[in-house]
Amino acid sequence: MAKLNEISTSKSFAGIQGVYSHKSQNCDCEMTFAVYLPPQAKTQPCPVLWYLSGLTCTHANVMDKGEYRAAAAEHGIIIVCPDTSPRGDDVPDDDGNWQFGSGAGFYLDATRQPWKKNYQMYSYIVTELPELIAEHFNADMQRQSIFGHSMGGHGALTIALKNPDSFKSCSAFAPIVQPSTADWSSGAFERYLGDDKTAWRKYDACNLIEDGRSFPHILVDQGTADGFLDDGLRPWMLEEVCKDRNIALTLRMQEGYDHSYFFISTFMAEHIAWHANHLVR
Amino acid sequence: MAKLNEISTSKSFAGIQGVYSHKSQNCDCEMTFAVYLPPQAKTQPCPVLWYLSGLTCTHANVMDKGEYRAAAAEHGIIIVCPDTSPRGDDVPDDDGNWQFGSGAGFYLDATRQPWKKNYQMYSYIVTELPELIAEHFNADMQRQSIFGHSMGGHGALTIALKNPDSFKSCSAFAPIVQPSTADWSSGAFERYLGDDKTAWRKYDACNLIEDGRSFPHILVDQGTADGFLDDGLRPWMLEEVCKDRNIALTLRMQEGYDHSYFFISTFMAEHIAWHANHLVR
Repeated sequence: MAKLNEISTSKSFAGIQGVYSHKSQNCDCEMTFAVYLPPQAKTQPCPVLWYLSGLTCTHANVMDKGEYRAAAAEHGIIIVCPDTSPRGDDVPDDDGNWQFGSGAGFYLDATRQPWKKNYQMYSYIVTELPELIAEHFNADMQRQSIFGHSMGGHGALTIALKNPDSFKSCSAFAPIVQPSTADWSSGAFERYLGDDKTAWRKYDACNLIEDGRSFPHILVDQGTADGFLDDGLRPWMLEEVCKDRNIALTLRMQEGYDHSYFFISTFMAEHIAWHANHLVR
Repeated sequence: MAKLNEISTSKSFAGIQGVYSHKSQNCDCEMTFAVYLPPQAKTQPCPVLWYLSGLTCTHANVMDKGEYRAAAAEHGIIIVCPDTSPRGDDVPDDDGNWQFGSGAGFYLDATRQPWKKNYQMYSYIVTELPELIAEHFNADMQRQSIFGHSMGGHGALTIALKNPDSFKSCSAFAPIVQPSTADWSSGAFERYLGDDKTAWRKYDACNLIEDGRSFPHILVDQGTADGFLDDGLRPWMLEEVCKDRNIALTLRMQEGYDHSYFFISTFMAEHIAWHANHLVR
């Protein structure tokens, strides 16, 4: 059994909010993540909902500000919040660049040096961390869903599209829907993946759908007062490609909301309830 | 009208979470605070619930981690979250001491030099800030209640006991109920107020009740796994003095909860609903 280091646990909403770390094989460094176990997990295996965070975040931002525990406890769902990149003294970084390196792993497997040794977030989220969760927690891995915010919304969409049999449902808050062309992500794609843009398409939700990938249930909330709406997020591009390919996307433009956790927390309970409809028997 | 500086506003739960600062007369420095305006405040004056934070906190901790907005929006209550002390380059401090100075104002009016010039948190919370709130927000100041955590629970209890006509209800999460004798507060009392302990009694909830103060409704939640329970908090001392003086205290010992915001957020909605019963017509 892979070793797990317990950093902290606190009772919350009758369940347990824990923070753990482990030596990741994929990322070749110590990785930290948060798990909320609802009270139901004391007596029965519970479904797992993955939350992928945005640029600059660690596991802690949504744990502190996301307000997910009340709904997770109500519906009996485990919430797993991974970090957004490998980290550590031995992990290459681009100091001061918030759009690349630490905090900006973009949920892809880098193929270029010096990044490929550690920046393997796609495999980490899709393979290594689920195995660890299955080993150490009372989780029903046959029932998983995934959601995220901004860069993490990109992660949730692309991971769901590429693994439709692994996830019952996928939602996002203000996702980057076409990172290969967005200002704040295309530079990272080039450095992680090289300049052959065909390699970028498998980490781009709009491109994946154009290339034939599909997913049965997608919910997206997007604030209209989000400062990144026009340049980085552009949910209408996802809407258009989903329409073309007959993918059931529910896109809700939320009047007056910005890009912050004040927006995320407002709609968190609705997202968890929506996932619960797909997850809870 | 006293000038108010808007630092940020974000829509949240259909209301507005704002952060503001102003030049405080009482504290003789720029003071920052958070206000959540529920959606009802757009069309009608709303009651005000004051949340006083604990040692080391600013206005931001409970704003980020307290999970109060859903319930505040549901009940139509304004939540005001002040800072816990004066701050700034011109404000004397005791660097590295988390139990005194910055972040540790103890909601009292200091009488000793060099602290008395700025550390006037009691007057600030009871007089100056309410006037500012009344001027700038759609608040019904005839309907106010107060609550807080740890040092802020001490603040809520003592301020309610000394101003029973100003507040409809008072509650606390893990309050310091007898700060004049608790390890983590008695030193601060001595430095702020001098060594005549009769001056300490008016900022000590248990002493105030012994000296004849009363309040009609008090709710306290206390986690049994709180590391500060036996040395700093000791809610049984409040229970005993309330019983002696026929004060209606509801003390709930919450099994397994610690001193963190994971505890506070769990019971936040219940506290707000309880205050709403006293506040909302």
